[in-house]
Amino acid sequence: MNSIKYIAFDADDTLWVNEPLFQKAEMNYRELLSDYLTSEKVSEELYSTEKQNISLYGYGVKSFTLSMIETALRISDYKLPQVIISEIIELGKAILTEPVVLLDGVKDILKELYTNYKLVVATKGDLLDQERKLNVSGLNDYFHHVEVMSDKQEQNYQKLLNHLEINNDEFLMVGNSLKSDIIPVVNLGASAIHIPYHTTWQHEIIEEKELNDIKYHKVNSIAEITEIINMFDKKD
Amino acid sequence: MNSIKYIAFDADDTLWVNEPLFQKAEMNYRELLSDYLTSEKVSEELYSTEKQNISLYGYGVKSFTLSMIETALRISDYKLPQVIISEIIELGKAILTEPVVLLDGVKDILKELYTNYKLVVATKGDLLDQERKLNVSGLNDYFHHVEVMSDKQEQNYQKLLNHLEINNDEFLMVGNSLKSDIIPVVNLGASAIHIPYHTTWQHEIIEEKELNDIKYHKVNSIAEITEIINMFDKKD
Repeated sequence: MNSIKYIAFDADDTLWVNEPLFQKAEMNYRELLSDYLTSEKVSEELYSTEKQNISLYGYGVKSFTLSMIETALRISDYKLPQVIISEIIELGKAILTEPVVLLDGVKDILKELYTNYKLVVATKGDLLDQERKLNVSGLNDYFHHVEVMSDKQEQNYQKLLNHLEINNDEFLMVGNSLKSDIIPVVNLGASAIHIPYHTTWQHEIIEEKELNDIKYHKVNSIAEITEIINMFDKKD
Repeated sequence: MNSIKYIAFDADDTLWVNEPLFQKAEMNYRELLSDYLTSEKVSEELYSTEKQNISLYGYGVKSFTLSMIETALRISDYKLPQVIISEIIELGKAILTEPVVLLDGVKDILKELYTNYKLVVATKGDLLDQERKLNVSGLNDYFHHVEVMSDKQEQNYQKLLNHLEINNDEFLMVGNSLKSDIIPVVNLGASAIHIPYHTTWQHEIIEEKELNDIKYHKVNSIAEITEIINMFDKKD
């Protein structure tokens, strides 16, 4: 086994709080549409629109906002008061201006690792929004490279690895999504550490069987990854 | 003077047709709102919204669509028929599904240059949309690196240059926008070739005085850049 050269971190819900912000917006959205459908049905309809739009819009807040508007028009049969469309736009803007809340232990671990490894951010979402969050997070200096990806499938990771000019087994990915951060990475012969977050967007949830015999590590908090990294690394 | 190592190309309206697609959408948008304001006023209001939203939304089609919706609600005093909001969303989606039309001579020049230089795409806009256009353009194989930038100011270019690990004077930028492709690049001590396009988004237009004594080259079509590149390059 080769030594790890690059350690890549997912950003949303790995470095900082993200999904709860979307969930808060969605709760408010359900409230705005409560005249038309039950909360649960509103979420179902929204998710169905999001899934349909992802190939066109990609991930992130703008995509989410446009899908909220499209869904609201449809489920109200175009009777939704226009002012509510404005309020939906504001729900999206609110996410884009939320303060960045780091998860416990993140800063310490990056500080510890960045002198021995090249650290990378590998994240989906809106380019500008992810750059903003990284800038205000105070973490920017620890990272050698930031890659905002249009998707996190095997081919996207392979492109990143080619770009970093390393062998696949010199790459370690750390993230909260089995679907986006772990499975495609392990399938490429790289390593991965899963740090589950207490809540996960429906789109990122996978069925047990999709895991097959994927070999990856799992920890409860980012503070525990050093132990695994030392184990990987022949240098130690 | 150092030899040029990397040649970066702006994408929209440098490699392929873009601004006319936005202008077509805007013409349709003006028509949709003709009950409320004159065409000219609609465009003024839209541009004012876009400018205000850029720091939050960044560039690209999704940002444009959200600003169209916000503007339509405001200028109709929230009386806009809801179905028109749907039509505005469709105007945005139409841009995202338009075929990619290469500008004359693009493919030939890239074919000629890519064996001697590392070619880069340096573009603003939606990450996924720019990747889509590059993939369907058939140009992907000529490029060593694709950089979708949240903005094209000096600091964004400096980050790109650091990332490419070259000296600033080893970098040449080719593009249609004096504001985004030429001025910031020349200010960093790199070189730039301007290829004006027949139409320019208002936001990219600069006043003569902003050019100061900026030294850059100007050609009428991409086919003419080889001559200038040979002049730059000590190797020839």
